[in-house]
Amino acid sequence: MKFPANLFNSHSNKDGDFFLGMKSILGFKPKNLDIYKRAFVHRSVNRKDKLGNPMNYERLEFLGDSMLGTIISKYLYGKVPEGDEGYLTKMRSKIVSREHLNELGKDLNLIHYVESRIPKERFGENIHGNVFEALVGAIYLDRGYAFCEKFINKKVIGPYVDIEQLEGRVISYKSLVIEWCQKKKKSFQYDVYDDTGNDAVKHFAVKLSIGNNVVAKARATSKKKAEEIASKRAYYALQDKINKA
Amino acid sequence: MKFPANLFNSHSNKDGDFFLGMKSILGFKPKNLDIYKRAFVHRSVNRKDKLGNPMNYERLEFLGDSMLGTIISKYLYGKVPEGDEGYLTKMRSKIVSREHLNELGKDLNLIHYVESRIPKERFGENIHGNVFEALVGAIYLDRGYAFCEKFINKKVIGPYVDIEQLEGRVISYKSLVIEWCQKKKKSFQYDVYDDTGNDAVKHFAVKLSIGNNVVAKARATSKKKAEEIASKRAYYALQDKINKA
Repeated sequence: MKFPANLFNSHSNKDGDFFLGMKSILGFKPKNLDIYKRAFVHRSVNRKDKLGNPMNYERLEFLGDSMLGTIISKYLYGKVPEGDEGYLTKMRSKIVSREHLNELGKDLNLIHYVESRIPKERFGENIHGNVFEALVGAIYLDRGYAFCEKFINKKVIGPYVDIEQLEGRVISYKSLVIEWCQKKKKSFQYDVYDDTGNDAVKHFAVKLSIGNNVVAKARATSKKKAEEIASKRAYYALQDKINKA
Repeated sequence: MKFPANLFNSHSNKDGDFFLGMKSILGFKPKNLDIYKRAFVHRSVNRKDKLGNPMNYERLEFLGDSMLGTIISKYLYGKVPEGDEGYLTKMRSKIVSREHLNELGKDLNLIHYVESRIPKERFGENIHGNVFEALVGAIYLDRGYAFCEKFINKKVIGPYVDIEQLEGRVISYKSLVIEWCQKKKKSFQYDVYDDTGNDAVKHFAVKLSIGNNVVAKARATSKKKAEEIASKRAYYALQDKINKA
């Protein structure tokens, strides 16, 4: 892991840890660390800047929410050329749903960085999504639009957005695979195996066997997700067979 | 007026007129003219692309609406550091209100370019704002974020956004000036005079006299707006006097 040359000159060790944590989450180096710090300050801390303005993540959340919506809009515009305005609006709200954003924030373990006077276990689910939005706002201010777009593509669209699932055409690939196995009277099994990945966030590795063959593997930040990804891979591998069934 | 070298080779004269019209509205040269054309196609035309997807401005409107909100959010974030999330949300919806966007679209005379099977006089007010949003969406796709931001700063924020007025702290500078004149028993007069500007869009020039002195001048796309701007200038020039009154 490379440390920026000036890190230990200009920042405390605590800042250094925060910098490295952010770098790992963001996939790039923050320029103005203060903006990112603000993205994790809960209003209960009651912090103010020199001019007496409140310093917490709520304003950044406002900004990030808007930017997130715009980048998802652009993605959908390109991805679904046949979708009209109503369709695009509906899909966007599914992608940026509270539930979805909370899951995202949780997988990135953003709550680890939250500063608060309220014990973290007393927060509801929404803290995860709110801080995720604030983080997007911080990226926007610190590095501009292009970095936001890249971050959202990598962290939201790539791993979380599946148009077919969102449309309800496919509820769960796992259920499709199970259904097919039952119909075909084939045994199937999902196994967690040792993950050799070296990520900052814990990952789960799952392999799916049908009969005696391992048909797909996947790793993700939760067992459920890894099973779903493995199922999707198996589904596409078996698609011809399934459609003919 | 300079024509791009390849214009008359690759486009019809009609395209040339449209290109020049867009260039004048946008303040820069469009790259992909087709995207802008789509921003003016009403659904009544029932146009489809090669794949049978509907081609009208509604999808671009969806995109532009979102981008407009994001850029206004960023502007407000920087402009009002003391405003909390609720304040920012409220101010943003005032700035991007239907009424406000319709006024903008009308001032740019965007309806001139609208293709429709419905006679234009039968459209309601909202066509102006809708096409304005679609135009922002077209800029986003054609030239990216930075051009959108510049366009919105120049066309929306600069001429239309006055935080004090939006907050309702000042309803109208004209009424403040008139009030002051009446209290001080001074005569005042708003006069339209010859505007020497050479803009594509018609402008009105107004001068405000108090007693025998011209205290402010302004030009804008409507008489009402020019009077308001002149009043604001006068207000700031007279502010000390007014506050002491």
